[in-house]
Amino acid sequence: MRTPAFVPLATKATVRGLLPAEVAQLGYDIVLGNTFHLHLDPGDELVARRGGLHRFMAWDGPIVTDSGGFQVFSMGHGTVADEIKGRAPSGQQRAGRILAIAEEGVRYRSYVDGAERFMGPETSMEIQANLGADLALVFDECTPFHATRDYTARSTERTHRWLDRCLSWHAEHAPREQLVFGIVQGGVHEDLRVESTQAVAARGCDGIAIGGSLGAHKQQMYEVVGWATAALGDDPRPRHLLGIGEIDDLVAGVERGVDSFDCAMPTRLGRHGMALVPDPGARWRVDLTKSAQRESDEPLMDGCPCPACAIGWTRSYWRYMTRNRELTAMRMLTLHNLAFVERAVRRLREAIHAGTFRAAADALLAGAAP
Amino acid sequence: MRTPAFVPLATKATVRGLLPAEVAQLGYDIVLGNTFHLHLDPGDELVARRGGLHRFMAWDGPIVTDSGGFQVFSMGHGTVADEIKGRAPSGQQRAGRILAIAEEGVRYRSYVDGAERFMGPETSMEIQANLGADLALVFDECTPFHATRDYTARSTERTHRWLDRCLSWHAEHAPREQLVFGIVQGGVHEDLRVESTQAVAARGCDGIAIGGSLGAHKQQMYEVVGWATAALGDDPRPRHLLGIGEIDDLVAGVERGVDSFDCAMPTRLGRHGMALVPDPGARWRVDLTKSAQRESDEPLMDGCPCPACAIGWTRSYWRYMTRNRELTAMRMLTLHNLAFVERAVRRLREAIHAGTFRAAADALLAGAAP
Repeated sequence: MRTPAFVPLATKATVRGLLPAEVAQLGYDIVLGNTFHLHLDPGDELVARRGGLHRFMAWDGPIVTDSGGFQVFSMGHGTVADEIKGRAPSGQQRAGRILAIAEEGVRYRSYVDGAERFMGPETSMEIQANLGADLALVFDECTPFHATRDYTARSTERTHRWLDRCLSWHAEHAPREQLVFGIVQGGVHEDLRVESTQAVAARGCDGIAIGGSLGAHKQQMYEVVGWATAALGDDPRPRHLLGIGEIDDLVAGVERGVDSFDCAMPTRLGRHGMALVPDPGARWRVDLTKSAQRESDEPLMDGCPCPACAIGWTRSYWRYMTRNRELTAMRMLTLHNLAFVERAVRRLREAIHAGTFRAAADALLAGAAP
Repeated sequence: MRTPAFVPLATKATVRGLLPAEVAQLGYDIVLGNTFHLHLDPGDELVARRGGLHRFMAWDGPIVTDSGGFQVFSMGHGTVADEIKGRAPSGQQRAGRILAIAEEGVRYRSYVDGAERFMGPETSMEIQANLGADLALVFDECTPFHATRDYTARSTERTHRWLDRCLSWHAEHAPREQLVFGIVQGGVHEDLRVESTQAVAARGCDGIAIGGSLGAHKQQMYEVVGWATAALGDDPRPRHLLGIGEIDDLVAGVERGVDSFDCAMPTRLGRHGMALVPDPGARWRVDLTKSAQRESDEPLMDGCPCPACAIGWTRSYWRYMTRNRELTAMRMLTLHNLAFVERAVRRLREAIHAGTFRAAADALLAGAAP
């Protein structure tokens, strides 16, 4: 994998809206599947009977699977992203929910069929083995932003014990070539983050992922990430930042030594009618469903070399299509957004090799088109 | 246009799920846009300001637009397809509805904004001029199957008066190169169909479309179509059959001298998880969402040369994807289905030129893969 790299989500065995070949043509080497969702539907054993996730979805490149921790715990904490990102819970309920969290693991109710299920470190690793992931993530508790310091400390300790159980299971049962990354927790507390980073680094993981609540705003997130990467020092193993992918966050992550990122943002925005554009003041996005675009003959993005922009549709057409939630609009915006992120990350990667990272980063942050 | 031909629907300025270039690559020459829907949203005047429908949607080939008659009248008759195809009304209500049908035209309530609107022959032709259609269809009343003979007779007479008004408007105002087809009505009554065919043929239309209720079952449909084509005799103008496109119907239509067809079937089936396959006993379709496909390692369709089948996904994967209503499944099934129909029609076309139509038709009807 060329790093720094962005990893598109293939949560349910598909990068929504795109063919595997289209994802590869954009320049992506690796995608991220979801242990929890694939376990519940279609079932990791069914996928194993099909020859594994690569064959099932026809993706030839490497696949990383997240551990399911984030998804399992997000059921207990109301809505996922709100909690992790430090916003107040919205009260929205999912059909599934956590029944009990214990040393052994988590009992929860499936959102698919309402059945009671269990997931612990060994379960998660077994699912990832069944899926045939090239890179597995260990099972962790993803503590919410609003958890107390005390809860976060005890949870992080347990996550470290789960890490040991994951690695034991992995050493004994995982496919030989499968790599495994540990996950740093510790919430927004510097000492806990540093301890967690040291605990993960002390184990024989192939790489280190940074997870959990990274704070309520970007400056706090960068600080939290910085604690972890500083604690890693010159540890040569790759560092992955979970669930982060806005342009300024990618820059800040790479600055702090992060090698790879995954995030739903570019694909999800695309499905909701939003395109990435080089406009930092608007968080690099334009909402094409807005009436301001109704009669706009502007292109989606000036000079963009992506296949969506090559068609030549005006924003007026994009607006019409996105308001109708047309498949092709969702698909082509997904493609445009992934192309945008890929170019931004590639620009940073090439600048690192050329010794011009600072200039490239500043240009991106100032609104240069990637 | 190479005939016989199938015309994919681009109802709302897009063949749902596909790019214009993909539709062309499948071998399609022409698509069909919808006067009524495009008038209400985004508005034909907005499209005209964008340079017409071709530029708006970036489709270089010819475009036919239906007149809006079918859609306007379907609001008054409950659900559209049920009535036209002779099934009992399902009671389902649309937001829009007909307020009054008179000699002048139809007053209706828009399903978009609830506003009262009017559409008559001149309105329809003006919209089609604004859209810049290469081929316009005249505004007609699409009589439902359950209409009385008397109502159908009077309606058909009015449709002929509307035909004259359409042609007058067209002669005076339409874009110079725009062709116009008349539409034969007359319900399931032989004398009315023959009269209507003669009335349409007597006018200076560029071609003749067969519309309205064609009966409650396929044999009746073939009979009704046969009355019209027989009445046309050796009239050299092209004949279009509106809204029909199942494989056996295409064969029966071509047999009776129909040159072109349009139908929502292949694209709509694709969006609902159904693939066309060479299986006459199952109406040439397989429902991939069914549990029978859960663990099937079979391909979508054996030996199919289309891009969807080339990926190599098993039916098990298709089932998982279609049940999740994944964009890519809907898109690639649309592509597979349009490829299937295109090959079937091409096979008939080539057989006509080779003098082997009967053998090709019988093979298709017996379940040969097109």
